[in-house]
Amino acid sequence: MKKLVNAPRAVVREMLEGLVSLAPGQVLLDGESVVLRADTPSDVRARKVAVISGGGSGHEPAHAGYVGAGMLDAAVAGDVFTSPSTDAVLAAIRAVAGPAGALLVVKNYTGDRLNFGLAAELARAEGIPVETVVVADDVSLHDTVEPARRRGIAGTVLVHKVAGAAAEAGAALQDVLREATAAAEVLGTMGVALGPCTVPAAGKPGFTLEEDEIELGLGIHGEQGVRRVPMQTADSLVDTLLTTIVEDRRITSGDRVVLVVNGLGGTPPMELAIVARRALAALRQGGIRVERAWSGTFLSALEMPGCSLTLLKVDDARLARLDAAVDAPAWPGAGRLPKEPGVYRPSSTASPASLPAEAPQPGMDRFRKAALRVADAFEQSEPRLTALDSAAGDGDLGLSLVRGAEAIRALPEDAWTSPARALTAIGNALRRSIGGSSGPFYATALLRAARRLAEGPVDAAAWAEAFDLAVTAVSELGGARPGDRTMLDALRPAADAFAKAVRCGQGAREAWASAVHAAEAGEEATSRMQPRLGRASYLGARAVGVPDAGAAAVVVWMKALTPGIG
Amino acid sequence: MKKLVNAPRAVVREMLEGLVSLAPGQVLLDGESVVLRADTPSDVRARKVAVISGGGSGHEPAHAGYVGAGMLDAAVAGDVFTSPSTDAVLAAIRAVAGPAGALLVVKNYTGDRLNFGLAAELARAEGIPVETVVVADDVSLHDTVEPARRRGIAGTVLVHKVAGAAAEAGAALQDVLREATAAAEVLGTMGVALGPCTVPAAGKPGFTLEEDEIELGLGIHGEQGVRRVPMQTADSLVDTLLTTIVEDRRITSGDRVVLVVNGLGGTPPMELAIVARRALAALRQGGIRVERAWSGTFLSALEMPGCSLTLLKVDDARLARLDAAVDAPAWPGAGRLPKEPGVYRPSSTASPASLPAEAPQPGMDRFRKAALRVADAFEQSEPRLTALDSAAGDGDLGLSLVRGAEAIRALPEDAWTSPARALTAIGNALRRSIGGSSGPFYATALLRAARRLAEGPVDAAAWAEAFDLAVTAVSELGGARPGDRTMLDALRPAADAFAKAVRCGQGAREAWASAVHAAEAGEEATSRMQPRLGRASYLGARAVGVPDAGAAAVVVWMKALTPGIG
Repeated sequence: MKKLVNAPRAVVREMLEGLVSLAPGQVLLDGESVVLRADTPSDVRARKVAVISGGGSGHEPAHAGYVGAGMLDAAVAGDVFTSPSTDAVLAAIRAVAGPAGALLVVKNYTGDRLNFGLAAELARAEGIPVETVVVADDVSLHDTVEPARRRGIAGTVLVHKVAGAAAEAGAALQDVLREATAAAEVLGTMGVALGPCTVPAAGKPGFTLEEDEIELGLGIHGEQGVRRVPMQTADSLVDTLLTTIVEDRRITSGDRVVLVVNGLGGTPPMELAIVARRALAALRQGGIRVERAWSGTFLSALEMPGCSLTLLKVDDARLARLDAAVDAPAWPGAGRLPKEPGVYRPSSTASPASLPAEAPQPGMDRFRKAALRVADAFEQSEPRLTALDSAAGDGDLGLSLVRGAEAIRALPEDAWTSPARALTAIGNALRRSIGGSSGPFYATALLRAARRLAEGPVDAAAWAEAFDLAVTAVSELGGARPGDRTMLDALRPAADAFAKAVRCGQGAREAWASAVHAAEAGEEATSRMQPRLGRASYLGARAVGVPDAGAAAVVVWMKALTPGIG
Repeated sequence: MKKLVNAPRAVVREMLEGLVSLAPGQVLLDGESVVLRADTPSDVRARKVAVISGGGSGHEPAHAGYVGAGMLDAAVAGDVFTSPSTDAVLAAIRAVAGPAGALLVVKNYTGDRLNFGLAAELARAEGIPVETVVVADDVSLHDTVEPARRRGIAGTVLVHKVAGAAAEAGAALQDVLREATAAAEVLGTMGVALGPCTVPAAGKPGFTLEEDEIELGLGIHGEQGVRRVPMQTADSLVDTLLTTIVEDRRITSGDRVVLVVNGLGGTPPMELAIVARRALAALRQGGIRVERAWSGTFLSALEMPGCSLTLLKVDDARLARLDAAVDAPAWPGAGRLPKEPGVYRPSSTASPASLPAEAPQPGMDRFRKAALRVADAFEQSEPRLTALDSAAGDGDLGLSLVRGAEAIRALPEDAWTSPARALTAIGNALRRSIGGSSGPFYATALLRAARRLAEGPVDAAAWAEAFDLAVTAVSELGGARPGDRTMLDALRPAADAFAKAVRCGQGAREAWASAVHAAEAGEEATSRMQPRLGRASYLGARAVGVPDAGAAAVVVWMKALTPGIG
């Protein structure tokens, strides 16, 4: 058994301690597995009608999670899947109820009925008025078991909510009872389990299922369901659950309901969202008005994977009870729905305007020729780059750059009007044509350089600054630094050498030659480096001996540019 | 693969549709897997600094669950465990950002860095100021990987919160960036997985573990952890995680932190509570001031079982950001903690006063003798009742009633002063001495009868009414009705016959004889009934042929009372 627990016998105690240690509004009743509202008046005459629930543990956040203003005044926790004792229930009643009385919300299991029922009787003998509402919302046995004899499952939480809101609003015990009972009578739940759960003290699952089997109509105690069926789509399961609930509870077109999509403890939010989507759509399709809906883990069965759906019929009065404010850790509040799932269609002004036409600047023909020489060079060096990248990478760099070359050749005429515009166009073309990481790196670098060039006169100093910014962008993007055996090991020394040469008054041609030289030295150095980033880092020392393909590619395009510089 | 999904390829789309169909404050961006705040101003100049996050799906409720006022403006969802495309991120930036700019919160993975980074560059080229904060909070590789190169995991949610609150408060982009970066730098997270998870498109788990193995220091993509260790207690795991975080992040006694206990998707609330309990206790023990704590599923790895712990150092300013109001589906708010887990010790006035001494009423000696004859009868009929209960029950009724007999004999002298007091005392004695269901049934019946008798003169009519009320209490308690093959099949006709005879003016002796006769007929009838309640109901027709043990026990005590009546 793998669980985040300590001793199985300590599970309930430690869990309750954990819950109240996170909840300033809750306290533990001394010596009992009972969680109370911290603000319960000590003067019993000042107490409103108390709403108390509970049952076996293993259903968290039920029931302690619902203790708080507007919902439960106390939750009584038994051992896992075992009713709490009569004495524990009685202690809870004494701790939170006074002359105004208490309503006990009990799920329909023999143990809970007996212990809550007897505690109620004992409390009455002490002069505390107590009423009980038994929740039996599981419709999975709808064709064989009459409503009053069914199990109480996740829908119980909505009865807590209705009763708690009524009591908080100051309703008298008989009125709270009437509202809770009326809600319980128009409440239906059905669940599906994809697998079993394991009671900590038992240490092994309650049942086993084949890889393609699931249990329909399960309860919440790790028991088997009503029938074992083959695995099917979420939509199909939702339809089965909803059809059963709707038929049993006689919910028809035009009826108003609220929906609870409940995870059973091991169900991820992704799956609950997919279930909620279908449930809302199917109910709307049936003309049923879903006034509120909640999706989450409301009443679990330990770590069972699967879900249940609950429908409760509502009118304005009951809806107001469900909407009333609650200050309890596990009640999600709200539940309001959009009329229909919203879609935002941006107006065209949110998109960038297309570039205005501009006349080509002088020298752009030479610029274009240089760019096309880079394209040629990428194609010619494809075999070598592929070989290098296969030795210590995923082997796609050579072909990626060939696709980049094709994209450069395919650029429209009006891309070649200024250096900034051309670099932007090349960057965009590369990001669209090159997969893997090379596309984003080159695109980001070119766009960053283009932004610098667009700022003013494009002289050698501007180019040097643009080159430096582009290299910095590559470093920021991937998080690489010199020494990591990446393209940066050629780029950074090249940009530094170029900038230094320009700063010292060398001509563009000489400065570029220094840069190429630095890049070549950088490429060569990578053959002695171990990769430290990305997938290649797993190769470790095995990559040593050949240069990094990304650094080699830098030398390729830098050399190809040389005839066009100066 | 058992998941509540439809086609694996549709998982992300359907999930997002489900999420926004539950969230009136959210909309989907047309044609993109992007969730936006529904209240985003359409005038870009009216937009505050936008905070945008996202990444691969499978981490729900991250990131869409955090879209809302005070947190994220947009969440971009990739395929499961796959970075979203550059275009999707760019579309999100365009949809929610304006001249005030955008902050992208990016988890440190190559794909996310490249796509968010390039999208940022493209947006900048369009004139939208964009900054990026990279979150790398996973400390599990603390001895081998430098901080900036670690993975981004659950702590990212706290960076969303800090950045979102700053942006909502009107901070400028550089200030939002500064606060988010500062938070990311003092953030540490480490996780433990009890098992793998299954990517829907892959259809099988990412790794396998033996029954007693777990993975320490896992990421959030179904990959293996940093090391495989034997299963251990929750407390031991929490201590390991916390020690690593505290050492790595240099958190020392006196430091102020907030704590996130994060479930990985398949972790039930019970286990998270047990983890939270230990984490809070251990931090307090170390003198670390836990200012806020949250427990729940914040950033999951599909349905992975396990958890992560996150610590973020805070000062007053950062705490205020964490406390700021949020209107997003998955942010739990509050997080405030009690000074220490609260315990409520009821004052003695909440307990019932002990009974005042009273002189025995006339006839109580006879009453007591009758009760002792019932005790004798229970002992004498033990073998028969055990046999009957073994035939169609759990076989404990005979011995239960023998224990009841002993409890009746052990009652103190002052229990026998009035019928009401004696019945109350017997009821309490039976509930303490008898396990199973007989104790609660008899105790409830006797207490209910006692309450009626305490109301006025104890004549035959009062007894008849008390008997009827007691039988009704039994029926309410267990939900049984005549015909279910329970004690009620003897009790109900007996109570009715007694009441009718009393109403018709018969003497108590004659009326009781009718009642006993009716009970005997009722017992006899149960031998032709199938059980319909509780565990016995599984026997069905196999129980037919012998009378119900509970009904037989009713006849036993009724006959034993006969000499004392009238």
